[in-house]
Amino acid sequence: MPLESEIIDRLRKRGRTDPRVRIGIGDDAAVIETGGSTDLIVCCDLLVEGVHFRSEWTPPTLLGRKSLAVSLSDVAAMGGTPRFATTSIALPAWCTSEFVDQFFEGLFELAEDIGVSIIGGDTSCSRDSLFIDVSVIGECARGKAVGRRGARSGDRVFVSGSLGGSALGLLLFQDGFRLSDADSQDPMRIPASRHLSPEPRLALGREIGSLSLASSMIDISDGLSTDLWHILDESKVGARIRAASIPIGQSTVSIARERGIDAIELALNSGEEYELLFTVDSSNVELVKRLAESLGETVTEIGFVVESGGLQLERDNSVRAIEPRGYQHVI
Amino acid sequence: MPLESEIIDRLRKRGRTDPRVRIGIGDDAAVIETGGSTDLIVCCDLLVEGVHFRSEWTPPTLLGRKSLAVSLSDVAAMGGTPRFATTSIALPAWCTSEFVDQFFEGLFELAEDIGVSIIGGDTSCSRDSLFIDVSVIGECARGKAVGRRGARSGDRVFVSGSLGGSALGLLLFQDGFRLSDADSQDPMRIPASRHLSPEPRLALGREIGSLSLASSMIDISDGLSTDLWHILDESKVGARIRAASIPIGQSTVSIARERGIDAIELALNSGEEYELLFTVDSSNVELVKRLAESLGETVTEIGFVVESGGLQLERDNSVRAIEPRGYQHVI
Repeated sequence: MPLESEIIDRLRKRGRTDPRVRIGIGDDAAVIETGGSTDLIVCCDLLVEGVHFRSEWTPPTLLGRKSLAVSLSDVAAMGGTPRFATTSIALPAWCTSEFVDQFFEGLFELAEDIGVSIIGGDTSCSRDSLFIDVSVIGECARGKAVGRRGARSGDRVFVSGSLGGSALGLLLFQDGFRLSDADSQDPMRIPASRHLSPEPRLALGREIGSLSLASSMIDISDGLSTDLWHILDESKVGARIRAASIPIGQSTVSIARERGIDAIELALNSGEEYELLFTVDSSNVELVKRLAESLGETVTEIGFVVESGGLQLERDNSVRAIEPRGYQHVI
Repeated sequence: MPLESEIIDRLRKRGRTDPRVRIGIGDDAAVIETGGSTDLIVCCDLLVEGVHFRSEWTPPTLLGRKSLAVSLSDVAAMGGTPRFATTSIALPAWCTSEFVDQFFEGLFELAEDIGVSIIGGDTSCSRDSLFIDVSVIGECARGKAVGRRGARSGDRVFVSGSLGGSALGLLLFQDGFRLSDADSQDPMRIPASRHLSPEPRLALGREIGSLSLASSMIDISDGLSTDLWHILDESKVGARIRAASIPIGQSTVSIARERGIDAIELALNSGEEYELLFTVDSSNVELVKRLAESLGETVTEIGFVVESGGLQLERDNSVRAIEPRGYQHVI
């Protein structure tokens, strides 16, 4: 049974490269030259019932919203602006008209909020699981897309927002937590919402791209450690990050502590965060911080790029190599 | 449980229309202005195990090929040229590495043959069925895309190739026919191949679009009667077609006769033919015929557009109204 990474490796070797393809298989999104002043950014993301979500704890409006959000996040991670989307959905018998209406309500609400036009798609029935695939087409100024290959020794490693919440939310759902039963003040709502309703960092990604502030960028869909590995691998560099600098939300820290969970490990390995992870030349560090402040976003410097040596974590006055432990699709 | 057509109707009402969207939800593909000399054409098609294909009679290379072919056919039906594709695939446990290799071998072989670049996608596991969604981005000269709305009274109705083979092929598979057991001369191979390995009419569609020869066009994915209804409905016209003119392959006619199947009904209702169905102003009829001849393609005039009255079939000296009987997804 092949790993997703093995399939991608095989496809990359095979993919024919039209000279207009600036970035092809293996990044968050593909980038295509149009010949005009903008490049196209193209990506798609699957959500499969029982793999990416469980219907027993996922309200349909949030599922619709997330189906689009995860692809929007890929466009943000390329430094682009999403414009158009198509939605393919295969519906099993349990999906009622009401479910379908609510699903698309959530999806359209997000699309309208951010000015994305839903231009088409496909619908089918399914014998068993619900299957959703959303493709997004975005754009950026010609040559401005930010890939995974540009990190250089000496660059600083930044992450937006805070980490760990999505994985904790998933653990809570697996433990029986349900939004519908929770008090409106329940602190568990915070990680639960991080998991069910991620907010792609669209303005931050777009501006980082348009101002050429990052040497590489990715969104955290598989976990900080795995996604940073993707950058290191593509850029042929190493990195050292400081555990104490990794931003973790207060509710995540306190709920994790109560449950005896190591919040740092959670933050290192939590997939589906949809925060931006990017590397910045030291001359641009202040600009990045000012940009984030002007957008009302948080960015945190968590370490720096080194010439080689994989990914090293400084924690409690010691340094250890860490392997990617985030989500790896075993097919 | 909503019909696919009901879902599409709801989405069309909701879809925000960016001024650059020339054609949105509800056609074979969407058409977007780029501001330059070309328009983009965007579409996606789902293939779901147990709904669109059965693994017990579908060789993986042909499945890979068909997964791309069905979306290419949508671009052809808009009068465009396909350029780029993304592939999303959710693999259940029975899909071995060998299966995945063969699937992508078939898909890449077709992509390379026609100059389409595979630029990305997503892979996942699936608890049960195999799901495939392929998105294709194509292009056409600005304003040249052919939609479903332009048919006018007096236009002639044309279809490419021959019909009925795909549905007959499916019946044969359901009856136990298998390619692996069949003699190389077995005439049943012809409809079986029509079903498993459709050939999108790329050159014909592209040239009809570029020469502005059709007032409307669609590919036959749901069946001649259903797809012609789509054109009539969008164009607010009716049509009369002659049963005796509908092109049906010789092998389909003879196998259908042996099995007591009405070949005309088969041809009217057979989905997944991926032939082009288009309407032509009478002044362009000769040009269309010469174009097809120059491309080595067959086109057949099967009737004409009238002002109203739905879809009428002339057969055996009588005329009857026909309802769309092709494939209708019941979700």
